[in-house]
Amino acid sequence: VKLGELGEFGLIERIARAARRSGADSGRSVVLGIGDDAALLRAGAGEDVVVSTDTAVEGVHFRWDRQRPRTVGRRAMVANLSDLAAMGARPLGCVLALSAPPGLQVSVLDAVIGGMLREAATHACPLVGGNLSRARQTTLTLTVLGGVSRGRALRRNKAKPGDRIWVTGRFGASALDVLRARRGEGEVRHVPEPRLHAGRVLSRSSGIGAVIDVSDGLGADLEHLMRDSGCRAEWARDRIPLPRGFRVACARLGVDPLQLAAQGGEDFELLFTARPNGPDATELTRRLGVQVTQIGQVVAGSSSGAGGSAGGWRHF
Amino acid sequence: VKLGELGEFGLIERIARAARRSGADSGRSVVLGIGDDAALLRAGAGEDVVVSTDTAVEGVHFRWDRQRPRTVGRRAMVANLSDLAAMGARPLGCVLALSAPPGLQVSVLDAVIGGMLREAATHACPLVGGNLSRARQTTLTLTVLGGVSRGRALRRNKAKPGDRIWVTGRFGASALDVLRARRGEGEVRHVPEPRLHAGRVLSRSSGIGAVIDVSDGLGADLEHLMRDSGCRAEWARDRIPLPRGFRVACARLGVDPLQLAAQGGEDFELLFTARPNGPDATELTRRLGVQVTQIGQVVAGSSSGAGGSAGGWRHF
Repeated sequence: VKLGELGEFGLIERIARAARRSGADSGRSVVLGIGDDAALLRAGAGEDVVVSTDTAVEGVHFRWDRQRPRTVGRRAMVANLSDLAAMGARPLGCVLALSAPPGLQVSVLDAVIGGMLREAATHACPLVGGNLSRARQTTLTLTVLGGVSRGRALRRNKAKPGDRIWVTGRFGASALDVLRARRGEGEVRHVPEPRLHAGRVLSRSSGIGAVIDVSDGLGADLEHLMRDSGCRAEWARDRIPLPRGFRVACARLGVDPLQLAAQGGEDFELLFTARPNGPDATELTRRLGVQVTQIGQVVAGSSSGAGGSAGGWRHF
Repeated sequence: VKLGELGEFGLIERIARAARRSGADSGRSVVLGIGDDAALLRAGAGEDVVVSTDTAVEGVHFRWDRQRPRTVGRRAMVANLSDLAAMGARPLGCVLALSAPPGLQVSVLDAVIGGMLREAATHACPLVGGNLSRARQTTLTLTVLGGVSRGRALRRNKAKPGDRIWVTGRFGASALDVLRARRGEGEVRHVPEPRLHAGRVLSRSSGIGAVIDVSDGLGADLEHLMRDSGCRAEWARDRIPLPRGFRVACARLGVDPLQLAAQGGEDFELLFTARPNGPDATELTRRLGVQVTQIGQVVAGSSSGAGGSAGGWRHF
């Protein structure tokens, strides 16, 4: 069955049913979900509303022949949740704007939506509405809303000279997967973990500087932090924590593992700075519930530019 | 200059500057605007957050050769604000996900953004963030957030037998414009008015039944209201209020004015029901600040189906 045969209202009903089945249609924050002119969400008392939007375009951010539709959906949701994590917010809900060709198989779309809803259910970010349009290219725009206590949102511009530079998790798995798929060796399977818990812990901690989630690549996003904070980073690529087996896999493909890890992008780990008198790696790892590694420190001076020298993903 | 030459960060800076210039970058509800991982908005005490998303696709919802880029932007923003109006909400802010080909002229995009920002400034709905992607087709997805007092949101499913059926404004101007443009007679110029004030008045009024904004066409959206409310509408097409000069223009084009007004779509007027003992047309017109006309009444029984017989816009 193709999308054009199902029609708009059939598709809305299908998505709403899938959301109910997966438990990703409702929650404490949802006053009104799919089906009216708009959805209604309720933030907590004293919370501001965080909003972020992110788009995945077929042929640009994903290809049907390189990853399963379910993975496309999971990654799209994770990319958005990661922005909430980087603000220290808890998810309230999300809306999906989907544009697709009428000839798209409904089974493909079912799998995309299924992947999205899986992550939505896992991270308590219910799907409460959306929009469906015809288009030549499949495009998924997710907008996520979150709640964060007033004055507690994490920012990009709060790094200070002397801060240590930290990262959660490990880098390069997404880039390696994409590289392999590009060379015809299997599909993109890796689905990063949005660091929602770690972000919330950071938002409640003292001594935290600037925070960003790594989407464009560690080097480029570190440049963003430094530029927005008016500082410079001294950091060592060989401090980047790598996934298990990563060096071997890179050697086989003939690529520099540290370069791939630094420039790859879509890691969705948190990159943050903290005052030097704060907790050490062991203590941060315990509090954030994920491995935390120091990769450098912040010094006075201005950064080299908009991520140019550091590489990273170019959107145009 | 083309989009690809400007690049992502150049374009973000350009949009942020335009927003500042137009005064559509900030407001009482904006805690943090463009530039971080996400934006921060603040709803009022006791308010729920309304969220709605809507997409305009080049070649589907608009064509560069039939309307000015500025009109494309204005209409995209109005379509979204209209959903807030239909919920009785006041705007808090919006985010824009823009996908476009690298070959698109920056001047065209400037005009689209300019049109959007004009409506954003007029209706106090600041642009606080977004996302930029490469794509083959230009696609604008706006997500608007609003605030509405708890328990006061207007709904589609609250019509009751005996209710009168009312509409704001007049119908058919958008459809007439599109029809003319399709026949090569000028461009699409009409920009509907989002009925935000009227919606807020309705949300504070007693005796209001179901409410929707007319985007798919009066007939189709009346079907939506009736289906969601489990009722049936008895209404007369010849009660539809028409714009000045509409019958003459339709006669010249050889189309039935009432059919065009009933099926055209994109009027973005409010369609609502109210208990029969409520205010009359004169009083409603005074309170809502826009002409209000009764077009029928709600009766018991079930509606004929998903807008099929009534016509209206098909998305796939």
